[in-house]
Amino acid sequence: MTTMRERLRNPETVQTEITTRLHALMQAKSTQAAAHGSHFAELWALTSQAAQGGKLLRPRLVLGVFDGFRATAATNTHPRETAIDLAAAVELLHFAFLLHDDLIDEDLTRRGVPNLAGSLVTSVASTQLQGSDPGDETRRMHWARSSALLMGDLMLTLAHQVFARARVADPERSRMLDLLDTTVTETVAGEYIDVSLADAQITPTLPLVLDMTRMKTATYSFELPLRLGAIVAGAGALAEQRLGDVGRHLGIAFQLQDDLLSAFEQSERHGKDQFSDFREGKETALIACARLTNEWPLIERLMGPTNFSEESGRALQQLLHECGARDVIEAMVRDQIEIAENILTRDDHVIAPEVCQFLLALMARMVGRQS
Amino acid sequence: MTTMRERLRNPETVQTEITTRLHALMQAKSTQAAAHGSHFAELWALTSQAAQGGKLLRPRLVLGVFDGFRATAATNTHPRETAIDLAAAVELLHFAFLLHDDLIDEDLTRRGVPNLAGSLVTSVASTQLQGSDPGDETRRMHWARSSALLMGDLMLTLAHQVFARARVADPERSRMLDLLDTTVTETVAGEYIDVSLADAQITPTLPLVLDMTRMKTATYSFELPLRLGAIVAGAGALAEQRLGDVGRHLGIAFQLQDDLLSAFEQSERHGKDQFSDFREGKETALIACARLTNEWPLIERLMGPTNFSEESGRALQQLLHECGARDVIEAMVRDQIEIAENILTRDDHVIAPEVCQFLLALMARMVGRQS
Repeated sequence: MTTMRERLRNPETVQTEITTRLHALMQAKSTQAAAHGSHFAELWALTSQAAQGGKLLRPRLVLGVFDGFRATAATNTHPRETAIDLAAAVELLHFAFLLHDDLIDEDLTRRGVPNLAGSLVTSVASTQLQGSDPGDETRRMHWARSSALLMGDLMLTLAHQVFARARVADPERSRMLDLLDTTVTETVAGEYIDVSLADAQITPTLPLVLDMTRMKTATYSFELPLRLGAIVAGAGALAEQRLGDVGRHLGIAFQLQDDLLSAFEQSERHGKDQFSDFREGKETALIACARLTNEWPLIERLMGPTNFSEESGRALQQLLHECGARDVIEAMVRDQIEIAENILTRDDHVIAPEVCQFLLALMARMVGRQS
Repeated sequence: MTTMRERLRNPETVQTEITTRLHALMQAKSTQAAAHGSHFAELWALTSQAAQGGKLLRPRLVLGVFDGFRATAATNTHPRETAIDLAAAVELLHFAFLLHDDLIDEDLTRRGVPNLAGSLVTSVASTQLQGSDPGDETRRMHWARSSALLMGDLMLTLAHQVFARARVADPERSRMLDLLDTTVTETVAGEYIDVSLADAQITPTLPLVLDMTRMKTATYSFELPLRLGAIVAGAGALAEQRLGDVGRHLGIAFQLQDDLLSAFEQSERHGKDQFSDFREGKETALIACARLTNEWPLIERLMGPTNFSEESGRALQQLLHECGARDVIEAMVRDQIEIAENILTRDDHVIAPEVCQFLLALMARMVGRQS
């Protein structure tokens, strides 16, 4: 007898399927790029490389949900090829957001390696004409950042093209386009609140930071993939809506846990610079929560780039623990996970059991994650 | 008897139709934006305002071609509503490009009035939290520019949404999506060459600058609207291709003439700062042409922001005339217009006579334009 688990695809197979499709999509565009001159073809090659380094969390969610529904006979599913295309498009959308997010944050690296702008700054093409003019470095940086901006636009376009061309019936196309539309709008709204907080243009409050967390991360990283997988699998509106709710709670939990990891774990365990959020004075939910406590004046003084040291980092860890903010956020993570679990374990078969199984397993891994 | 001219719509009526549709599209999104908090709603309101100040050249081209084909009974046309939607989407695409282009150029105004980033910098919302910290201005600028970047993404998304949802048959949808795809790719490639030239990352040559002119301006401003109007009107592939050729030649002529106006006309006549191209050291076709002449060392020394004066401006006008570059570019404009005219006056009725009439009238105005 086959168990549910065995009926779901091997994660490595899925990973390969997504990587292959992503590569094919980029390759098709690369040929087109070459027609616009060798300079643009070089830029495209670098972009294509940068697009393919991710963990593919989002496309794996699309296919996990799709395969889960497909394992039941109840839904009127589209071909798996269509689901793989859309999964790749979700990764391209993520990449487009990363390119523009890194510009806003003025970052030249991501997870320790140069991002597109970072690799352009040091590329051969950009240095071949370099003289001894002190303005050269400024120009090269402007050129690299502008190129990343333009390629972000192209990735956003490519993601939309895949959605617009998906071979699905008109009602599903409408649902998918509505989903994409609200997703991009919410993500932009979330990013806007993020940058408004970072640049001190609006007053930080815990509800606002939680809203930002949901809109900036949960919507496109979790709600979109889960709902998309459901639509392509031919699941009904109720199943899609419930999975959207699951995604939202899961996404908030994921981001809050990320904030906790960044604040309290050793850098080797989560891949970021130790204390980078503290040093940047990042407005996370953890910090917004600490604002409400008596310890805030002490905490505020220790955060931010001026005179930041490892010592202040450790003092902040201690204070964020003592003031209760850590406990509050940890409880929020547990609550969000629990709400998601409750939706998934309702016994009315609205969401196919294989889909629930897939997501519950994911959540179990997430609760224990340290990176 | 009705003449051809009379059968085409009154330009003011068309202008109103486009403005109304554009307003409706933005209004629908504005309601959606309000659901994401008051801060985002304010940003949306400013963006919506900024989106509606254009001359609407591109959407008027879409509708001019559509109406021209519709005046003949030969084509299997879609409803005019669809054409108006797509015309508005072309304007949104233009607006998205302008937002990102202004970021790359670090401009805070366009045609003498503040652009989105410019109006954000001075908006009430951005100053309410302002203290006396000298970093405040830097932060406000970063916030304003980041917001414009994000809204450019949203406008690009909105344009794609309209294309993806257009109520046309599948073959036409494919043609339209192909057209949108090559248009965005070429425009990005053109912008990339532009920024690579401006930042001295690639060597300027006349063919490269002409390529850039075509890709950056002609493709989305002329080729896209003409081909799109033809597709929605149900015209065949040959008519679409010919109109694409017309658009390309017309677009190159338009941009070259813009370069000439900027170099040789009084600012009151073309709306830009007098000598702004010279002061910025902009790599136009006129300059690329002058590079090939003996006068280049003299010309090079006078261009660029360092010590630029009205005197150097007038000296440059004189030199660009004497070296022959002005004559070459003026001849190119005439040639491009002539090629377009030759395509439009072929006597085989591939392009409907009303469409030819509309475009020939436009070209006649263009040849005489001084703004």
